Amino acid sequence: MTKRILLAAVAALALPCSALAQTHDVAALRDAALQDDLAWEITEGLTTEIGARLAATEDEARARKWAIAKLTALGFQNVRSEPFRMPVWVRGEEKAEVLGQHAQKLSLAALGNSGSTGAKGIEAEVVYFASFADLQAAPAGTLKGKIAFIDHRMTVTQDGSSYGVFGAARRTGPSIAASKGAVATLIRSIGTDYHRNPHTGGTNWAQGVKPIPAAALALPDAEQLERLLKRGPVRLKLDITPQFKGQGESGNVIAEVPGSDPAAGIVLVACHLDSWDLATGAIDDASGCGIVAAAAKRIMDAGQPRRTIRVLWAGAEEPGVWGGKAYFEAHKNERHVLASESDFGADRIWKFDATLPESGKPVVDRLAAALAPLGVGRGRDPATGGADVAAVISAGASGIDLAQSGLRYFDYHHTPDDTLDKVDPAQLRQNVAVWTTMLAITANAPEQIGPAR
Amino acid sequence: MTKRILLAAVAALALPCSALAQTHDVAALRDAALQDDLAWEITEGLTTEIGARLAATEDEARARKWAIAKLTALGFQNVRSEPFRMPVWVRGEEKAEVLGQHAQKLSLAALGNSGSTGAKGIEAEVVYFASFADLQAAPAGTLKGKIAFIDHRMTVTQDGSSYGVFGAARRTGPSIAASKGAVATLIRSIGTDYHRNPHTGGTNWAQGVKPIPAAALALPDAEQLERLLKRGPVRLKLDITPQFKGQGESGNVIAEVPGSDPAAGIVLVACHLDSWDLATGAIDDASGCGIVAAAAKRIMDAGQPRRTIRVLWAGAEEPGVWGGKAYFEAHKNERHVLASESDFGADRIWKFDATLPESGKPVVDRLAAALAPLGVGRGRDPATGGADVAAVISAGASGIDLAQSGLRYFDYHHTPDDTLDKVDPAQLRQNVAVWTTMLAITANAPEQIGPAR
Repeated sequence: MTKRILLAAVAALALPCSALAQTHDVAALRDAALQDDLAWEITEGLTTEIGARLAATEDEARARKWAIAKLTALGFQNVRSEPFRMPVWVRGEEKAEVLGQHAQKLSLAALGNSGSTGAKGIEAEVVYFASFADLQAAPAGTLKGKIAFIDHRMTVTQDGSSYGVFGAARRTGPSIAASKGAVATLIRSIGTDYHRNPHTGGTNWAQGVKPIPAAALALPDAEQLERLLKRGPVRLKLDITPQFKGQGESGNVIAEVPGSDPAAGIVLVACHLDSWDLATGAIDDASGCGIVAAAAKRIMDAGQPRRTIRVLWAGAEEPGVWGGKAYFEAHKNERHVLASESDFGADRIWKFDATLPESGKPVVDRLAAALAPLGVGRGRDPATGGADVAAVISAGASGIDLAQSGLRYFDYHHTPDDTLDKVDPAQLRQNVAVWTTMLAITANAPEQIGPAR
Repeated sequence: MTKRILLAAVAALALPCSALAQTHDVAALRDAALQDDLAWEITEGLTTEIGARLAATEDEARARKWAIAKLTALGFQNVRSEPFRMPVWVRGEEKAEVLGQHAQKLSLAALGNSGSTGAKGIEAEVVYFASFADLQAAPAGTLKGKIAFIDHRMTVTQDGSSYGVFGAARRTGPSIAASKGAVATLIRSIGTDYHRNPHTGGTNWAQGVKPIPAAALALPDAEQLERLLKRGPVRLKLDITPQFKGQGESGNVIAEVPGSDPAAGIVLVACHLDSWDLATGAIDDASGCGIVAAAAKRIMDAGQPRRTIRVLWAGAEEPGVWGGKAYFEAHKNERHVLASESDFGADRIWKFDATLPESGKPVVDRLAAALAPLGVGRGRDPATGGADVAAVISAGASGIDLAQSGLRYFDYHHTPDDTLDKVDPAQLRQNVAVWTTMLAITANAPEQIGPAR
């Protein structure tokens, strides 16, 4: 406690404007946020009352209505939905069966944007690739009529950086396999758990490549297939029947805490409202929406901030950041000074990264001091934002990334297991405290905090 | 190590017949078994090459062929299948959907012997019971046209005793609900994990009660339904279409290590070869078959034991111990002196319970001394056997229960998650060492070790 009080005192002394310190007492707001129950209420409500919220479906539309009602009831200003159009993809049946003497079923899930086997399914032999690089190295045409199986093995990392590396098998593996003649692609799930819950996620087709069926095997099933392949050739029957359903409507939900100084710019805080269809999307990303809204409300309730805080609950992030792109197109000419997103679950924030202009250095120092008592260290990575604010940051806004622990995130990410019980209320409250602290400091800073370049 | 050597010396001194000690050096057999790889080979082979093995299906028939070939290749004598007939039940579609404003899917699995909703499904309102006792207390007729939901919450116990208590919701809950007018029954899975993998398992219909659809919700889904019910009435659409397919064939696979003294009786060691259909049944019970066969082979390879060791890989345990009953009917007049079964996974054995006649007391003392170095204590419960040998023990045979840790068993039991990766090779080897020790002592004991009464 001594250390905490000391740090709070240091932070208060460092504030050049004592009037702001009185309106938004950073340490008091931070400590009060450790008792927050709003983030839980939002996470519980959205996941229970709406459930899964696949982009551009009726479920996601219900989620937008729910979001507008909720954010309005909480007292935010300018609450609205900003609709946009996008292609709609929906899951169908998905079955895989080993044929022949070792006949058995395997558990898998189609990747977003997967093609279809057709109702009759397909039968073909499996070709094994131990890694994404091995698939890349396969000569053109060698996969003709075959099912490519990419057994790329993700590892656990606290900062989630392994997702960038190993995720390539999902993001572009199927397109590469298709270009080499494959009739379908299976990947070992981009995940770190041993449950029969495959990890879905979007895949992308290169220009001119016709989508083929593409699905992820649960880890136990990927290893089963690997063992079977060691015994000899394996033929599979695949029935994977998702559909592209033309254009549909999604939308971003926006709410604001208007600032006292419009010239000081906007602090944008984001999450995404949609989820994959396999689960209720508790950690991806209902909890993120709970965290940013709860933090913004705490600032609002403590008095008007200098800068406008804009809360963005983006639509359709999962199938390709459609909401983030639509937001940027609609708002790119506004003065965003800072952007940040919570889209990595609800586990404890362990570090922060900040990319601010030189004038913002004292702000970052105050933030570091105020976050230390919450167990948050100062990182040295560039802040690039979550997917929905990345364009805003690329265009010049400063960024602050509040990095959650990823040690168990990829056990649940994009699986049927992303449900409310995976959210730890104590860690969720720590998130709200960190975000409240960040907003109390940045939305009120008298310094210029952005754009960063 | 000092302690180990000392205990081995004590055990050797306690042996009244030094000739037997030379043929079967208990401590040497025990310690060598800690390097066993046969139990893993059997577990890996059966789960990989056959996969799921639902009773009285073609899959289980393939497993019997595999078992006979394997046990024969290992050098066992009198290897054979003993077929029997039984009713066949197979899973169909299974879907549950919340209707109305909170529309969403729930994850569930039909219980073995569940009735069917028919292809068109059923729609009905849910009635909540916090416990099995609450369901029992509901007045007759009050469930007419409703879906009973039994939210009985299992807790973790090392000895698995909670399964007996909480399992009632599954074993007889649906029958009770049906007798009170319910059109279907849902239970919270009898399990302790928070994955979207429901726990199936057999349910029993009382005389005169017509089977209704009966299914288990995964724990996250049971809690979701509970949260929804707190918000108001819930109507569900259920599509659960299993089928009773008349009589079919299952069978027990038997192998022996003939003893030198036929009058000394049979030591029966068992497991079950069938599994539920949702997974490859690695911990339930391929590993049990690996353990008992590996231990029996170690005794066989060390020289002929005094008593015949009979290995029983029972068929059709899961839907109602059909194999155990058929075995008892066929063999009840033989002289079984001792019976034991491995059917509780492959985690470390932490205690043993023994029910032997007074003459067997020195044998149990030697066993306790020899097992202590493996971390196995002496329990005080009566030994009742696993399901497949319970009838043999009830009829008078002595029993020894080698109790595995159940701390994570009910995370996987009867779910899609019961796969090879759940077996820890080091703990599996400890099991083989314990079983080898038990057989080395009991199959050779000069004392009368059974019947117990």
